[in-house]
Amino acid sequence: MTQRTVLFVSDQTGVTAETLGNSLLTQFDGVEFSQMTVPFVDTVDKARRLAETIDRIADEEGLRPIVIASFVQDEVRAALLECNGLVLDVFEAFLGPLEAELQSLSSHTPGRAHGMVDETKYDERIEATNYALAADDGHAMRDYDKADVVLIGVSRSGKTPTCLYLALQYGIFAANYPLAEEDLETNDMPRGLAPYRAKLYGLTIASDRLRQIRLERRSHGRYATVQQINFELRAAEALFERFRIPYVDTTHSSVEEIASTILNDTGLQRRVRP
Amino acid sequence: MTQRTVLFVSDQTGVTAETLGNSLLTQFDGVEFSQMTVPFVDTVDKARRLAETIDRIADEEGLRPIVIASFVQDEVRAALLECNGLVLDVFEAFLGPLEAELQSLSSHTPGRAHGMVDETKYDERIEATNYALAADDGHAMRDYDKADVVLIGVSRSGKTPTCLYLALQYGIFAANYPLAEEDLETNDMPRGLAPYRAKLYGLTIASDRLRQIRLERRSHGRYATVQQINFELRAAEALFERFRIPYVDTTHSSVEEIASTILNDTGLQRRVRP
Repeated sequence: MTQRTVLFVSDQTGVTAETLGNSLLTQFDGVEFSQMTVPFVDTVDKARRLAETIDRIADEEGLRPIVIASFVQDEVRAALLECNGLVLDVFEAFLGPLEAELQSLSSHTPGRAHGMVDETKYDERIEATNYALAADDGHAMRDYDKADVVLIGVSRSGKTPTCLYLALQYGIFAANYPLAEEDLETNDMPRGLAPYRAKLYGLTIASDRLRQIRLERRSHGRYATVQQINFELRAAEALFERFRIPYVDTTHSSVEEIASTILNDTGLQRRVRP
Repeated sequence: MTQRTVLFVSDQTGVTAETLGNSLLTQFDGVEFSQMTVPFVDTVDKARRLAETIDRIADEEGLRPIVIASFVQDEVRAALLECNGLVLDVFEAFLGPLEAELQSLSSHTPGRAHGMVDETKYDERIEATNYALAADDGHAMRDYDKADVVLIGVSRSGKTPTCLYLALQYGIFAANYPLAEEDLETNDMPRGLAPYRAKLYGLTIASDRLRQIRLERRSHGRYATVQQINFELRAAEALFERFRIPYVDTTHSSVEEIASTILNDTGLQRRVRP
């Protein structure tokens, strides 16, 4: 398999270049990528030194590195463009058309995207994260009034990481409640959840995948037996259906996909964006 | 102020379009953006219906909406391009040059970026998240062997959100230890941290910002007094200097910036990328 060096480079955090670059690279199956991120390249001098490094890699490998960049400062980008790499810069590509459309010049100021432009937004993410921690795993049910969404599902169906992701990425207040055996043995809505029915969202997962996850955690007892897992999953899905709780199967999904699906299904507004 | 409607649209999760779009929009100060995300537009039919919605918005507002898109399926993108909006598509812009460079066709398959292509990577993020939860706030110090990094700092300096972000975004195992009064009253390395000195990374924060954060949490007692806060911060920074522990000031930084700075300073390798 061909191997290619890829650099995600930015005069800011590099998060945009990484996210975009990773998205693009997943489209190429037949190539193995060796990746590195170089953030905070925010002076012409740093850009020149990086350009030299890129040239050295190009010489050593006999193939020019691929550089996914997001420079807001034109003169810093210009210094990097001197290198012998394929530089694809997202600001270079899109700021022009946006300026034309908005009839407004962009500020070309670093430290804005993913920066703490707005302390309120920062606080919202932190508060949402603290909320997710406090309302994890069935705790703080008396604070469900504050929740934007309450995820329910059996143990290890993906509730906690999803809640934390919703909080950190979008400032969403997400609680989660584990459906335990006593909840699943009746046909009722679990006690305490009934007043929040409109906020409930279910997670389910394929039986064999759940078994694999639970075995890694605890291999003894009923917890990871096929019989127990099948009982729990069937009862949980029946509960979702009975009370018309929307739910998603997390088996083949990343945390990003689960979170996007929940936001899309519920129409919940993001308080903050990545 | 001019107001413009912006849509982040994708046949996948929309995370790339959101991240990129937000990054671009922060460059325009004089415009107020009304934003919405439309993920999973993965058929020509859905794209046509969305194009109609966009046309309706354009009619109502008298200004065409701005559409930041990331379509991997050409025919779906083509259907959306029929709309009366300014469509900037990152795959359209960059896949061509990448295909030429790699002498390889991209797969144009949705569900790859931010998707669970690789179960191992998914597991790494979840395990890192579980680790961050277990090793939060000075817990599970006996498991610091497993940590990639141990964040230390006074209460409310930003340790927990940073650890969770490092875990979810990069699969990094990050523990955190709160510097308490008894740690700060001596000139010694806090007991239990000494064996992990090479993994330590400090967080500090401006005194008035910390006071504001602590007051929201608990307004009585010494916890949020200027005197106490100044003592803690001075002692913590002295500790970082004495033992040459790298540290970052989180006052004006987002979680993304803090995380990028830590990775950059430590040279820690990302296990997973966003």
